[in-house]
Amino acid sequence: MTSPIRVTVWGENFHEQSERDRAGMAERYPDGMHGAIANGLTELLGDSASVQTATQDQPEHGLTEEVVARTDVLTWWGHATHAGVDEAIVDRVHQRVLGGMGLLVLHSAHFSKIFRRLMGTTCSLAWRNSGDTELIWTVNPSHPITAGIPHPIMIEEHEMYGEFFDIPAPEELIFLSTFSSGEVFRSGCCWRRGKGKIFYFSPGDQEYPIYHHPDIKRVLANAVLWAQPERGTGFNPPAVINSPPPHIHTRHVAEGVEA
Amino acid sequence: MTSPIRVTVWGENFHEQSERDRAGMAERYPDGMHGAIANGLTELLGDSASVQTATQDQPEHGLTEEVVARTDVLTWWGHATHAGVDEAIVDRVHQRVLGGMGLLVLHSAHFSKIFRRLMGTTCSLAWRNSGDTELIWTVNPSHPITAGIPHPIMIEEHEMYGEFFDIPAPEELIFLSTFSSGEVFRSGCCWRRGKGKIFYFSPGDQEYPIYHHPDIKRVLANAVLWAQPERGTGFNPPAVINSPPPHIHTRHVAEGVEA
Amino acid sequence: MTSPIRVTVWGENFHEQSERDRAGMAERYPDGMHGAIANGLTELLGDSASVQTATQDQPEHGLTEEVVARTDVLTWWGHATHAGVDEAIVDRVHQRVLGGMGLLVLHSAHFSKIFRRLMGTTCSLAWRNSGDTELIWTVNPSHPITAGIPHPIMIEEHEMYGEFFDIPAPEELIFLSTFSSGEVFRSGCCWRRGKGKIFYFSPGDQEYPIYHHPDIKRVLANAVLWAQPERGTGFNPPAVINSPPPHIHTRHVAEGVEA
Amino acid sequence: MTSPIRVTVWGENFHEQSERDRAGMAERYPDGMHGAIANGLTELLGDSASVQTATQDQPEHGLTEEVVARTDVLTWWGHATHAGVDEAIVDRVHQRVLGGMGLLVLHSAHFSKIFRRLMGTTCSLAWRNSGDTELIWTVNPSHPITAGIPHPIMIEEHEMYGEFFDIPAPEELIFLSTFSSGEVFRSGCCWRRGKGKIFYFSPGDQEYPIYHHPDIKRVLANAVLWAQPERGTGFNPPAVINSPPPHIHTRHVAEGVEA
Repeated sequence: MTSPIRVTVWGENFHEQSERDRAGMAERYPDGMHGAIANGLTELLGDSASVQTATQDQPEHGLTEEVVARTDVLTWWGHATHAGVDEAIVDRVHQRVLGGMGLLVLHSAHFSKIFRRLMGTTCSLAWRNSGDTELIWTVNPSHPITAGIPHPIMIEEHEMYGEFFDIPAPEELIFLSTFSSGEVFRSGCCWRRGKGKIFYFSPGDQEYPIYHHPDIKRVLANAVLWAQPERGTGFNPPAVINSPPPHIHTRHVAEGVEA
Repeated sequence: MTSPIRVTVWGENFHEQSERDRAGMAERYPDGMHGAIANGLTELLGDSASVQTATQDQPEHGLTEEVVARTDVLTWWGHATHAGVDEAIVDRVHQRVLGGMGLLVLHSAHFSKIFRRLMGTTCSLAWRNSGDTELIWTVNPSHPITAGIPHPIMIEEHEMYGEFFDIPAPEELIFLSTFSSGEVFRSGCCWRRGKGKIFYFSPGDQEYPIYHHPDIKRVLANAVLWAQPERGTGFNPPAVINSPPPHIHTRHVAEGVEA
Repeated sequence: MTSPIRVTVWGENFHEQSERDRAGMAERYPDGMHGAIANGLTELLGDSASVQTATQDQPEHGLTEEVVARTDVLTWWGHATHAGVDEAIVDRVHQRVLGGMGLLVLHSAHFSKIFRRLMGTTCSLAWRNSGDTELIWTVNPSHPITAGIPHPIMIEEHEMYGEFFDIPAPEELIFLSTFSSGEVFRSGCCWRRGKGKIFYFSPGDQEYPIYHHPDIKRVLANAVLWAQPERGTGFNPPAVINSPPPHIHTRHVAEGVEA
Repeated sequence: MTSPIRVTVWGENFHEQSERDRAGMAERYPDGMHGAIANGLTELLGDSASVQTATQDQPEHGLTEEVVARTDVLTWWGHATHAGVDEAIVDRVHQRVLGGMGLLVLHSAHFSKIFRRLMGTTCSLAWRNSGDTELIWTVNPSHPITAGIPHPIMIEEHEMYGEFFDIPAPEELIFLSTFSSGEVFRSGCCWRRGKGKIFYFSPGDQEYPIYHHPDIKRVLANAVLWAQPERGTGFNPPAVINSPPPHIHTRHVAEGVEA
């Protein structure tokens, strides 16, 4: 039997505490957004995952070397305080992703330091908060992230995220969202960087109870399974090598070349 | 000065003549749909293109060896009579695409023999003809096919084409369409096959005057420019070669290997 | 516990029986090439796979409706008698791939009907049979097909397959081969078509005992695991749908649009 | 007539001046490596390009706001003094690339700050300087960067760069190199980031006279033509937009939705 996937759900934990938002947040997310995400993963993944949370207001943003070293998949939600994230922690997470840790980047974390660093682009987009209905359509129906997902997922009310979304062309495009005013967004996108897999998923604004939506929980659970590192590859990022010639143990090589 | 791009606009020319549709077609497309597409290209490309038309009801569907041999870019619109297209003509067009000819596949030609053969998939999709407004959004703003195109293009009324569209993942995704009922479609997609470039563009149902829309005409003209073959590569498809070893004219190779 | 992956190893079974080759084949492949491939998969996958073989000389090439309907992953090796494969069987396999069956295309099967049909290109390449040493390098080290594979794999003697290989750009490029005379080949390539996954892997000429090589066996076993269909998606290819508008059950949509 | 492409050839200009290397450099590259690259582009592109040079030892590394603002395509060669490049200049170049400037990244500049920032990965690789012969094979024969290029290009002696090269999967793979000891490298790779196009090309070690090789000069000239910005798109990187709903001027939208 394989050991459980070690998931760390990272949250900014700002709106939960801010004077302006805390009442609404407490209603929508009594355990915080990170708590809701963690609960959903635990509910759906059961024994196959071991889920913990970490938040920006903790020492080292809750992402100590020890925590990162025992994380297989990290989920990242941030919005208002991206700028406050310490570059050294971003370095640590970046190295871990390149070494094989999966990363789920959620909603407004398109503007997080870690995502922009992994993408190399502005990661800018169009947005509007006017309670549009969002429909999330599958364009890769045999991809494991879409297992058990309806076509479309419907979110009754949500913030609009629209194109142009300035990202490198997704290596696998999974979901497209439409909004009731007519916009479109590449809302589920996969990339590999180094040995790590990255999934960006746009639903999840703090003003809407998105992370209680059963289909959204299912997408996140599927994405954790997809993003987990290959067993046995270690967590070292690829490194430069001053490489000796390959050892070739027959006479055929030289002969082939001389022919 | 470079010689003009030789464009052949191919049309099924069925609805134009069918008892049921010919009155409406004559109103929307007095020169036929192929005529309208050809006129738009001539208007926008001027001396840089030489545009002719060919239709399915002509001998060899208007695609004789001679015609194909002097075509740099072929546009293909078909709908009701895909099954009547001779396999030998499909072979001829297929070989020419693999040899470098550009191909623009339009609207219901997603189900044409030539497109299905190039894609290898069912090319099926969801559809509904209920006069939805279609918005066409650019997701690749520095691609030459998008030059001068508004974001979004608006088509007031059109047939809906929706996902899942069963195509190989586009090598370059250019446009996404949304419809007023909420559907989404990958409406502008690029691939290379052999030495040829292929652009699928979904707008263009026979019941709507799409090919007079200035933005649609602009997309098609841009796509002709993009899809034209590289000069000087000939039109032979890649062929199998029983290949001698590369001629390496120094002693370094063998030494390097023996080291 | 999940049920075993149902693998069918398909072989042309021509060289095994031809007057010219049968003596050498009997020495290299006493169970036939298909037998060797099947043995390797059984050895490495154990209870997680149920492996059977089928050959071209059987009725319906061994690929009856019943056999295909109970196949999750099909491996295909052919060389001398591609032309003799019945189009109706190719249709059947094609539909099954689009419906989700994994397909491993081996060596000279680059010219098989099924591969050419799925790719849409000539699938031509450069080749030379002069016993070159082949080195197979991993360019996607976190891909599951590469688990446990050395960098490089060395094959002491093999037929050379070189570029240009006329295939659609691989969606995932896994392996690159070099040959002792200096050529290069994209020797491990992944695509999706419909709901099915396809892996082309070039090692495996009939004149060399490639399929006994432990690293090659490992690649094939990994590829079977990778190519298996997602559970629960059925095996129907994507189909055209005349689709009603999505059911949206709140007032927000219309309001959002009218705003 | 179109105006010339404004090319800035940037060079580290360190080996040219270092005590250890300057004698050899003066022999191989009397005008510096940047001078040789610039001369090659001028020779092949003629009036269609306007070529200038800039070097790291100049104020602001020769990349003042004014210089960058009049550059359409930048080529970048660096090796020994990557760490000395000012982050503010990297920011400036980064923004310009995202805004549409083409970037050619040459040889050891795989480890430059600008390339690593655009890629998001370590950009590490295997290497060995033992005078291997390098063969550069085309795997995308209809790509404009390959126009007029032999298959393979042969470089008699060069430093070996081998896989694994830790880059995001190239959006277009153009060239593969083999070395006489058997290694392989993805030596010509294309990406888009923001509105800009990036081409990495590995030949060009300071110890070998690579940039005088006629085929290498041709590749660089082709790459400048490919990488030039689309005319008329400006040079502003994509920006976040708080976007009003699209203006839809018919009654069909609301009706379509309500149906």
